Amino acid sequence: MKQLVLGIDLGGTDTKFAIVDNTGAILRKEKFPTETHRSIDGVMSLMAERARYMIGDDPVLAIGLAVPAPVSSSDGMLYQPPNLGPEWRAVKSVPVKDLFYKYLGLDLPIILNNDANAAAWGEYWCGAGSDAKTMIMFTLGSGVGGGIVVDGKLFEGGDGAAGELGHMIVEMENGAQCGCGNKGCLEAYASATAIKRMVGEALDRGEKTSIAIPPEGLGHLRAKEVFDAAQQGDTVAAAIIAKMTSAIGVACGTIINIFNPDMIVFSGGIAAAGDYLFNPVREKARSIAFERPSARAKIVPAILGNDAGIIGAAGMAFVALGK
Amino acid sequence: MKQLVLGIDLGGTDTKFAIVDNTGAILRKEKFPTETHRSIDGVMSLMAERARYMIGDDPVLAIGLAVPAPVSSSDGMLYQPPNLGPEWRAVKSVPVKDLFYKYLGLDLPIILNNDANAAAWGEYWCGAGSDAKTMIMFTLGSGVGGGIVVDGKLFEGGDGAAGELGHMIVEMENGAQCGCGNKGCLEAYASATAIKRMVGEALDRGEKTSIAIPPEGLGHLRAKEVFDAAQQGDTVAAAIIAKMTSAIGVACGTIINIFNPDMIVFSGGIAAAGDYLFNPVREKARSIAFERPSARAKIVPAILGNDAGIIGAAGMAFVALGK
Repeated sequence: MKQLVLGIDLGGTDTKFAIVDNTGAILRKEKFPTETHRSIDGVMSLMAERARYMIGDDPVLAIGLAVPAPVSSSDGMLYQPPNLGPEWRAVKSVPVKDLFYKYLGLDLPIILNNDANAAAWGEYWCGAGSDAKTMIMFTLGSGVGGGIVVDGKLFEGGDGAAGELGHMIVEMENGAQCGCGNKGCLEAYASATAIKRMVGEALDRGEKTSIAIPPEGLGHLRAKEVFDAAQQGDTVAAAIIAKMTSAIGVACGTIINIFNPDMIVFSGGIAAAGDYLFNPVREKARSIAFERPSARAKIVPAILGNDAGIIGAAGMAFVALGK
Repeated sequence: MKQLVLGIDLGGTDTKFAIVDNTGAILRKEKFPTETHRSIDGVMSLMAERARYMIGDDPVLAIGLAVPAPVSSSDGMLYQPPNLGPEWRAVKSVPVKDLFYKYLGLDLPIILNNDANAAAWGEYWCGAGSDAKTMIMFTLGSGVGGGIVVDGKLFEGGDGAAGELGHMIVEMENGAQCGCGNKGCLEAYASATAIKRMVGEALDRGEKTSIAIPPEGLGHLRAKEVFDAAQQGDTVAAAIIAKMTSAIGVACGTIINIFNPDMIVFSGGIAAAGDYLFNPVREKARSIAFERPSARAKIVPAILGNDAGIIGAAGMAFVALGK
């Protein structure tokens, strides 16, 4: 008999909902705008309304909720979310579990997780990492995040803040400026934001490139344009991609030396670039990691795409239910 | 009723033996030269003889053995030990548990661990980390090693090779040469070997320093001489110490962002330098780590000194016995 939970992945732009069974299969899913222009209560009540609609008459056992911020699973608080609008940014923490429960009006357990952790759990449970015991996931997007599964358990750290892999320092001297305020973070070389910055720096230096800059400005440049230009022989683009893959490879090699994991998974838009990106990352990582841990660690792309978060959120609910 | 095990810490120079009870107290201990000029069988049979002598008539339940190399606790193999002499270096692996059992001739469980992991477990069990749930230890010496305790369990990784914290890359461009073959490893800035190298580089550049170079040569310089010179205002020594503490702080901040741990412990000779070393490390680490994990993570010196390895080796034997 299949058991069901509702997985929710609250994002800065959209919120995804899916009814997921205990094998990780999605029975149905929907995506709605998060409407972050609303108040915190407005966002939460809207999410609750949609959750009730998604559940309908199904015998759902629990709700797994993934949010884009560190969370405390013990007290249901969410801390300093950077991407959910001004009202969220203005407060230090939001009692997101209590609020959701209040607006939901259903007597269901709510299991709260950070979204990168949920995505890592999704890939571990029924994606790229399903053969692994210890798996580390890097999420490459406008920022760089991460999730850690150690000996078959999601590792969240003392405050639910573990896995901030984008803020490993890979360059302590003269490192590039990161959005977090530090210099030399992985994110300052490996995020979509970093790629845009590096293109801008090349243009400022007067370098000639075939990268097509959108008429709306550099902020609208997609990483894919830079990959494409590099593959077509553009030297500026190739140098930027080399810098990015080198930084990712360095971080990956460091992670192998720290964790001796079975698998390292890369998710997000940049990871979809395929072997052109993966091969130099693997080569760099293997040049850094010790022989035996390097031989063990598979370095692979994620396979669940945008569904990793909702599947993982649902999966963590099944874990909490002891299923 | 106290229970007893024999803890052994096999080192490149000396091997330490101690009868340890289940509270972590040392009842008696001895240290003997390892005699690495002997064959592998010679070293193992000598160690077995001393183990029988140490046990005497005591009702010892098991032996915890820590060795200076990655180990596989499942099959009792030791891999590529760098510091145990030429015969050990020439082989890829040594069935150290089987050999020891053969020469010992006693029907006792032997629990094998890597020495840095054992030391971390010692500090976690009854040293600096005894209040922590997740604790990361950096061992600063002629090299830099590490050990990881996650949610109350020693984390060894898939091949017993986790925790190689000395080979986190902190400087991916123009990094200093590390003994492992890579550039920019923490060990290339934070080990006693690195300090000697940096002093040599300063002398090669013709810089004036009050650091007393031993008549036997730079290889005999102790890190303490450099700390002392720096504290007395020597600018060359101060710059070297600043580089070292900066690299350690960067690695420490990165580890806080990855693990969100309760505690980071520093052991080894360099760690004994006190606040003069710890304060800049703490400052740098806290400048890098996110606010909440930074507030949680205590950054402290180890307290068990050279006994951490034997206590931890014994402790891991108690864990294996289920005590």
